[in-house]
Amino acid sequence: MLDDLRHASPEEARRRIRERKHIAPTTGISIDYAQANLVVLKREAAYEFLLFCTRNPKPCPLLDVTDAGSPRPLLTAPNADLRTDIPAYRIYRNGQLAEEVEEIMDHWREDLVAFLIGCSFTFEKSLLENGIPVRQLELKRNVPMYKTNIPCVPAGRFSGPLVVSMRPIPYELVAKAVTVTSRYPSVHGTPVHIGDPSRIGIADLQRPDYGDPVPVYDGEVPVFWACGVTPQAVAVQSSVDFMITHAPGYMFITDVKDQSLSLF
Amino acid sequence: MLDDLRHASPEEARRRIRERKHIAPTTGISIDYAQANLVVLKREAAYEFLLFCTRNPKPCPLLDVTDAGSPRPLLTAPNADLRTDIPAYRIYRNGQLAEEVEEIMDHWREDLVAFLIGCSFTFEKSLLENGIPVRQLELKRNVPMYKTNIPCVPAGRFSGPLVVSMRPIPYELVAKAVTVTSRYPSVHGTPVHIGDPSRIGIADLQRPDYGDPVPVYDGEVPVFWACGVTPQAVAVQSSVDFMITHAPGYMFITDVKDQSLSLF
Repeated sequence: MLDDLRHASPEEARRRIRERKHIAPTTGISIDYAQANLVVLKREAAYEFLLFCTRNPKPCPLLDVTDAGSPRPLLTAPNADLRTDIPAYRIYRNGQLAEEVEEIMDHWREDLVAFLIGCSFTFEKSLLENGIPVRQLELKRNVPMYKTNIPCVPAGRFSGPLVVSMRPIPYELVAKAVTVTSRYPSVHGTPVHIGDPSRIGIADLQRPDYGDPVPVYDGEVPVFWACGVTPQAVAVQSSVDFMITHAPGYMFITDVKDQSLSLF
Repeated sequence: MLDDLRHASPEEARRRIRERKHIAPTTGISIDYAQANLVVLKREAAYEFLLFCTRNPKPCPLLDVTDAGSPRPLLTAPNADLRTDIPAYRIYRNGQLAEEVEEIMDHWREDLVAFLIGCSFTFEKSLLENGIPVRQLELKRNVPMYKTNIPCVPAGRFSGPLVVSMRPIPYELVAKAVTVTSRYPSVHGTPVHIGDPSRIGIADLQRPDYGDPVPVYDGEVPVFWACGVTPQAVAVQSSVDFMITHAPGYMFITDVKDQSLSLF
């Protein structure tokens, strides 16, 4: 199924997802198009969250924000419906993960605002084209994600730790991985940390907080990028009363080409 | 006075401004430090404006947003006071420029939010270092700014035209000017238009809507960058009931080094 959708148009991929024919992580799907993290909040909380994103552009680079009540992301995929076009959603209540669901039609309300946040999957094709291996793609797993001890800049009720994704990179390709990803500031850009995981509060790479573990081979360095799952960790720490997100790794596929998010 | 403050620290420059000893455009002051556009709005309008900035990152790249009631920009100049540290302010009421003042202590209220927006002055030193002349610096004038026929993406009550700044660039240096400014996405980045002003609705380069005219010499092309004065044109078109801004060219000087806003 995954290989099947590798070269699917975003429209086609979203249709398959909407019809519940693809209920799996989206890494590698519609390979030329940018995927996005979803955060849905009540309008009453939206200003403080927008401020949080503005103050934390590395983990929360905004690609699109819907008008209150509208599930249509007008800038990035005007024909999509954010209530049905993601394979799995998480619903948080009072800072607790309450349920994981396959669509959110019944949870949608007129006072909800949806935020689409850039995803590091966008630069993975560019890493591959520059000869840099991407372990979780090789293994067909979800990328490993970790809560760190790096605090985000708070905004109103929103505060909490930075979440990062990790890719093992061969020593001789680390500098190249930095320069390649520097071209993509709107999808997390350069790494936030290179090397020793304990320096950013990660005790065990084989026990990620989200996604799947991947092996780090001899001669490789763990490299960490800011991750759009950060708002989920923030929702928990801040006891946000209501929030819907995508399930980590189960992203929204936009109509925006990865390449168009590259600065040069 | 201007030459005097060219190498002043931001702290010193702001002190001179606060003491009303420098009431003039800020171009060329504290030359290594980023300057910013100011927009102050009521909290009630702040969400829609933040959304407007998110949807229009070229003219409105946010460097900082204060908490409601606080005149301190914690991320970019924590010791500054945005009510006194800019040489000239404009107050808009119901979409009309109501007055221009030298400080806003008496206008400040507990429900006001201040936004600092990146300014193209930041990349001018980099242009000069790359051998690209900056006409208004040569002539010690304010940069010329123009309303265009390019609409911004609306957000709530905020809609209106993109405003651009113009610098005449020798033909053989235009590509270089694009690549140099591409390194600075948080201060307007690459040009939005190169050449024929009429294509973006500018009838006469010698009659700018804001700032001073500068000559375009034979062998030069007018090059246009998105400008942080855009919110002022938007305030007028949208009849925003209350808004305070800097006076065009009279910017806020931050503690952030220009170079740190460069991607590479």
